[in-house]
Amino acid sequence: MRIARFSHQEGIKYGIVDETDLVVLSGDPMFAGFEPTGERVPLADAALLAPVIPRSKVVCVGRNYADHAAELGNELPAEPMLFFKPNTAVIGPGDAIVRPKQTSLTSFEGELAVVIGRIAKNVPAESAMDYVFGYTIANDITARDLQKTDGQWARAKGFDTFCPLGPAIETEFSFDGARITTTVNGEVKQDGPISDMIFSVAEIIEYASAAFTLLPGDVVLTGTPAGVGPFEAGDIIDVEITGLGRLRNIARDA
Amino acid sequence: MRIARFSHQEGIKYGIVDETDLVVLSGDPMFAGFEPTGERVPLADAALLAPVIPRSKVVCVGRNYADHAAELGNELPAEPMLFFKPNTAVIGPGDAIVRPKQTSLTSFEGELAVVIGRIAKNVPAESAMDYVFGYTIANDITARDLQKTDGQWARAKGFDTFCPLGPAIETEFSFDGARITTTVNGEVKQDGPISDMIFSVAEIIEYASAAFTLLPGDVVLTGTPAGVGPFEAGDIIDVEITGLGRLRNIARDA
Repeated sequence: MRIARFSHQEGIKYGIVDETDLVVLSGDPMFAGFEPTGERVPLADAALLAPVIPRSKVVCVGRNYADHAAELGNELPAEPMLFFKPNTAVIGPGDAIVRPKQTSLTSFEGELAVVIGRIAKNVPAESAMDYVFGYTIANDITARDLQKTDGQWARAKGFDTFCPLGPAIETEFSFDGARITTTVNGEVKQDGPISDMIFSVAEIIEYASAAFTLLPGDVVLTGTPAGVGPFEAGDIIDVEITGLGRLRNIARDA
Repeated sequence: MRIARFSHQEGIKYGIVDETDLVVLSGDPMFAGFEPTGERVPLADAALLAPVIPRSKVVCVGRNYADHAAELGNELPAEPMLFFKPNTAVIGPGDAIVRPKQTSLTSFEGELAVVIGRIAKNVPAESAMDYVFGYTIANDITARDLQKTDGQWARAKGFDTFCPLGPAIETEFSFDGARITTTVNGEVKQDGPISDMIFSVAEIIEYASAAFTLLPGDVVLTGTPAGVGPFEAGDIIDVEITGLGRLRNIARDA
């Protein structure tokens, strides 16, 4: 099942995506279950939004693909390397990535995003997948220059618009053979299999939930494969993941 | 005016603190204004809670007191050094600080906390104080060992219970002569004037709001003076700030 959040006739709604329509739900399915209202909205008439705005946090894992760690000259981590993006960084499909004037080197990082569905604290890897609501695509936008000079990555990873999410949440994502592909203006920059992750989704949930309570609607970004690189104003950045569709954003300067 | 959030008869309410009572407000004063309901609750009958749970983020500033930067062997920052605590780390007065098994060296850091009252984006220092709702006390609990080994401070600063806030929000705080005093089991560990901050509250809001939109209820921790140190299970940690009262928490092991 694929669930989208969208604006239609000045309201924000959730719906199940079928071939041509959004089957409108009565509330937020992360908190209220899946209750169809009977209303259907043609996909063509709806503007998709970020499928979730976390009430608490976006937890991110750095250096979770060996080839990406290598391309930035970093060693492989012995444990998941966690950092946060604030929910104010989240934008949806089609929204502009705004390059702030504080940075002169912004980079894309296509990633698999996990949406948490139940309160998770000290969850062992064996049962971690029971806490997953679904999956979507993320672009972990990074000010590469400030990432180095600031030390802590709060600004470099946390500027407004630096966390595109979407286009929808897939509750039955299959990891088998899935790939992350990022293109800039149609040119392939990243193309790696999800199976190259160093720490699995279950291991990340175990590790993160041993530190912080994860709340329904929290989002976990699971790292990016090799091929990250700069983008400029006007660039069209697409992140595709097998089975999850495509997340497109266009960059502009502040 | 001093505003507290408290539980009473199984409900969570906000109230204005007078000498003996809480004058109950109709909703969340950060969003709904100050509308008294007519109800009064004796302070003795109310359990004070964290005065705010941020909808978005706790933005923290590292190394904002010269003597504290020096005691940890760090250089003075040229710009505010920002990091995040998640809202899941927030606890209130009297709540237990839980030392997780992942760390063997937890430290207290008494700090002035700023509660944001209006949406703030690209706010200049000159008008930054207009965006402040009020002030409270924070204890920026830190796993000093993991802070070093993790590199990014998400875990070291973000464990559940690592952000005590309270006891209430003072809307008319006076900086003049105000001091931060932290005691452990009654022994003074930190005692420094707020005026020793390297970057002022207004400068921090300018800098942070140039990166992230600050939302009503977001909290900004403004750094800690010298004297930070370890604490153990059973320790009673009090942070006092002139005019803001006292924030007491007791540590325990997980």
